[in-house]
Parts: sequence; structure tokens; C-alpha cells
Amino acid sequence: MAQAPDFTTLAAFRALLEAMPGPDTAALQAAAARNGQLTKPPGALGRLEALAIWVAGWQGVEKPRAARPQVVIFAGNHGVAARGVSAFPPEVTMQMVANFRAGGAAINQLALCFGASLQVVALELGRPTADFTTSPAMTEADCVAALQAGWASVDPSADLLVVGEMGIGNTTSAAALAAALFGGGAAIWVGRGTGVDDAGLARKAAVVAAGLALHAEALADPLQALRCLGGREIAAMAGAMARARLLRVPVILDGFIACAAAAVLARAVPGALDHCVAGHLSAEGAHGQLLSALEKEPLLSLGLRLGEGSGAALALGVLQGAVACLTGMATFAEAGVSDGA
Amino acid sequence: MAQAPDFTTLAAFRALLEAMPGPDTAALQAAAARNGQLTKPPGALGRLEALAIWVAGWQGVEKPRAARPQVVIFAGNHGVAARGVSAFPPEVTMQMVANFRAGGAAINQLALCFGASLQVVALELGRPTADFTTSPAMTEADCVAALQAGWASVDPSADLLVVGEMGIGNTTSAAALAAALFGGGAAIWVGRGTGVDDAGLARKAAVVAAGLALHAEALADPLQALRCLGGREIAAMAGAMARARLLRVPVILDGFIACAAAAVLARAVPGALDHCVAGHLSAEGAHGQLLSALEKEPLLSLGLRLGEGSGAALALGVLQGAVACLTGMATFAEAGVSDGA
Repeated sequence: MAQAPDFTTLAAFRALLEAMPGPDTAALQAAAARNGQLTKPPGALGRLEALAIWVAGWQGVEKPRAARPQVVIFAGNHGVAARGVSAFPPEVTMQMVANFRAGGAAINQLALCFGASLQVVALELGRPTADFTTSPAMTEADCVAALQAGWASVDPSADLLVVGEMGIGNTTSAAALAAALFGGGAAIWVGRGTGVDDAGLARKAAVVAAGLALHAEALADPLQALRCLGGREIAAMAGAMARARLLRVPVILDGFIACAAAAVLARAVPGALDHCVAGHLSAEGAHGQLLSALEKEPLLSLGLRLGEGSGAALALGVLQGAVACLTGMATFAEAGVSDGA
Repeated sequence: MAQAPDFTTLAAFRALLEAMPGPDTAALQAAAARNGQLTKPPGALGRLEALAIWVAGWQGVEKPRAARPQVVIFAGNHGVAARGVSAFPPEVTMQMVANFRAGGAAINQLALCFGASLQVVALELGRPTADFTTSPAMTEADCVAALQAGWASVDPSADLLVVGEMGIGNTTSAAALAAALFGGGAAIWVGRGTGVDDAGLARKAAVVAAGLALHAEALADPLQALRCLGGREIAAMAGAMARARLLRVPVILDGFIACAAAAVLARAVPGALDHCVAGHLSAEGAHGQLLSALEKEPLLSLGLRLGEGSGAALALGVLQGAVACLTGMATFAEAGVSDGA
């Protein structure tokens, strides 16, 4: 007997978002106290210290874990891909899903490198979303189904979660969503994606502007913005991030598209991304301003612009290092080291 | 029968530096060609691509390795520590060596996290260097012995090398060395180290200025600057970095003190750090300008200021991710993915 889904409408999803748990205050305090006694000058591990304490708070333990991260990649196809907004043809989405399943993509290597499990969830690739310049990208049922797919994908026993995506045309969808959520117009949110030329970039801006104009009345509601302008993999990422919050699994945000998904949650309910850290600053043009809008400081800035969760997966190493120091280091008393006080 | 050392004078060490090998051009080309065929848009892995190709070039193979890194930490004591330049007493150097050996320090956790071996080399801790405000820190014999200790420490089978240090007072020595090598005066090179207050910072600047004045005539020669103002662990780091070049093992540079050691090599022979990448930007005040002087762009910037090789060890994750992608990803042809051309 299949379990009944936790939500079947966008309104019910929003109600879940509004009732999400915060971190464990006692665990936060215990981890911070432990950090203060470790054999190093105060603050000498820089951002690693706050990062490990933050993980401890969400996991609800003094000594956090990072050995079993989960990576989930969602793939979707986009009606707007027919508008010449990508340097690659739409069939590449399915080809790359096959590549993920065969172990040949960048994310496979990075997941292996940092000991993460990897799931690939292909979302109705044979049935692209509608072209959002002519109608909403998804019906409510489509959007809810994608949110549910993300929601169901999270492993409750995962230590950390990376959520990634693949979908030819999805930087256009993400740019439209970011523009709807934060304003500023189409031009400041579109970028070169997988590598479009100047003409392609101009087409992207025109497509986004057309989508914003067509759906203007719906866009004040972030979940309606997701339905009208997003894609299945973007909705699924939002669903996975929300479920991780319910399970108190810390999330590492990837690049522009993953952050557009995250932004839906942040605009729907303030504080909805408190369990998320920005894994990296992507080279996709508008990612920096999207991170600023989300008030997230990236851990890495290495010019990646691949998606697939790759930048966030690379940041797993930083999280694992931070957690290893907090959990494994000796205290001044244990090591017999003078604490300089 | 012990092997004869490869050098017994500073002049002989310099002669070795001048005859160091470059990277393997054929391996560089093969790795770059492979990178261009992998299932990702061109350049989408950002800095990881050049990084993995660079490792391939030094290792002399198309598919580089990063699974067996080596971390070596050198510890030394400093005559200038008696001048009130540190927030911690000099006995902490020995206490931290015991902590390294017992597995309780940050570097132990980070080495374990990234699968690195860890060696700790304590350099005559009972016999601090001379106070460089009254005489040269080391005799030539002392300096050569420390260089030899570093030289001998490198594992020829290591995939990558991280060189770290511990030594109460050594940010003062490193600041003096940086000022000698790059000019600009004492004040711009001193920082708060493990956490000195304003009065301590002023004492550090005065101590550095006094050292620069006393040894002015010797400082045009980088190796003499090392002898007069450096410390045993700083010389040993320089020796290890030089040996790694001879063995073509890529080196990840740590923070301010490790980079001061590296700077001796760079100022002695142009290009001497071509096999080195900057692991991170430390929060120690002058590290950024030291990296600029060395023309090195850091991989990470997370506010660490601990030494011990910790920032470089954390960057091992980035190198391992980069290498994993280059070696493990499928090509467009292998995966049957359209390449967008």
C-alpha cells in the first residue's frame, strides 16, 4: 500500500513550508562550546568553525556527521528550448541522464570522490513543459507532481544533501523565475548557460521578458511563479530542499538553477533556506546577484558553470573538513596544550 | 651506509634550484586534449580543468592521480619568541608536536579526511634559532641542515604534497623574510598571527624592522635572507618544496609562513614555484599581498589562519575533485552525447 503524499496542492505545500522546524538550539550550543576548547587559536579555522556548528545544529548532535552525503539530480525538458535559447539540442537532456546512469558525468566522479550516494530522477523527459511565452509551463498537477518527486527523493539518513539538475533550456527558465521573484527585468538575469553567443543571449532575454509579461498577474505568488515559469527539475529541487528542512538534513546549494529553485522557497516563507549553505559561486552571469538576494556567501568560487550539482558536490570536501575538525580534534585539556589565556 | 646529501652548502642548494625540471609537455597536451572531449560544455568545470591538466603535466601522465597525497609538518622554535611577539608561550610548539603525533590537531583530521599520509618533523625544538634582532637566526650549517631535513622528507611516490608548519613566533620570522624579499618595510608584512593585541603587533613591527636593519647587507641574496631572518621549519619547508620540484610532485601552498618559505625559492630562481598552487588565502593580514607577489591565485578563501598546512590540506578536496573529473569522465563519443558543435 503506497503511503499518501504529504501534499497534493500548492497551497498544502506552502502550509508545510510555514511549519518547518528550526535547528536544535542545545546542539548548537554544545557544538559551539566544544569548538571553543579545541587545540587552535580562537577562530583560526575561519569559516569552517561556524559551518561545522551549523551542521551540528541541524543534525541535532554535538558532533556532526558528513561521511554519508546524498546527491540527487533531477532532469527535465523545457518548452522554451524550442526558442533557440541553448547551445545544445534538447535530446542532450536524455543523453546526459544516460551518462549519469552509466557513471560518465562530472557529478559521478565528484560524488565518488566525496563518498556521496547519487540518485538520478528523470521527470517525464518525453513530455517537455509548455513554452512559457505562450502558456504556463506547468499545470498545478504537473508542478505538484514534480515537487512530490523531489520531496520523496531525500534519504532521511543522509548527513548532507546536494541537489542538482540537468535540463536543456533551464537557465532561461531559472532566469525568468529569478526575475519574477526579485524583479529588475529580464536582461540582468539571463546569462550564457552552456555557451550561447550574443544572438542567443538576446533571444533568452526576449523569451524571459515575454514570459514575465504573459504571467504578470500570477507572479506575486512564488509558487505560481514556479508553476508558470519553472520546470519540473526546478520544482523537484525545491521539493527536495523543503523535505530536507523537514528532516533537518543540511543542504548545499549548487549554481544558478538550483538557487532559482531555492529562491522560490525563500520568497514563499522567510527563513526557508536557513538549513542551506551556498556551495559555490557559478560563472553563470547572474548567480552572484541571486546569491546576494538570498543572502548566501558561497564556499567556493572556481568558475564552474556546469550544473548537475557539481559545484555543491565539490564543496562537500569543505563541509567534510569542517566537520572532521570539530568532531576529531583534541581539546586543550585532552592534549595538554597551553591555551594562551 | 647513509646516502651522501644532495647538497651541503647554500650555494650548492641554489645550483640545484637552477637546474630543476619543468612539466612534461606531452602529458600536458594529452591531458588538455582529453579535457576537451569530456561530456560537459567547454570550460564548464572552470578552474578545475586547468588544475587537473597542470597536475597531469607535473606527474607526466595523461590521467593524473590525487589519491595518495602527503602532508609534512615541520616544527621549529624561534629566538624572537622571547620578544613578546606571540599570544602563546614557546612551549606550545613542543606541545602541539605531541598533539600532531597523538592525532589531535586540525591537520590530523584534514589529512585523514582527504586520505593523506602525515609526517611530523620536529627540528631541534630545544635549541631555538638565534634572536634575529641581535644576530643571524641560523648559521649556514643550521640552515643547510634544515633545508636537508625538508628535502629528505618528501615521499617520491606521493601524488601531491602539502607542506605545513608549527612554531611559536614564526609569523614574525615570515614577515621579516617577506619584507626582505619584496620590500615595503616591516609594517605592511606583520599581522596578528595566533592573535596578538595592538601592543603585540607594534612589537612585531619593531622586531622585524630591527632585523631588517641589522642584516641589511645580506638580504639581497634570498638564501641569506632565509638564514638571517627565517627559522628551521621555514627552511625545511623550502627544502621540501624544492625536492618536490625535482621529483615533479605538485605542491599545494598553505598560508603566510609556508608562502614566505616558497618566496625564498621564487626570489632565488624565477619559475621555481611553477609546480606549486596556492591552496588558500589566509586571514593572516599580509598573506594576500604575499600571494600577489608570488602571482598565485588561491583556490579557497575561508578565513583560516592556523598554519599546520591546514588550508592547503583542505584544498586537497578541490584537487581531488579536479583530477577525478579529468580521469573519470566519459568523452562525448564514449557516452553518445551530442557535443553541440
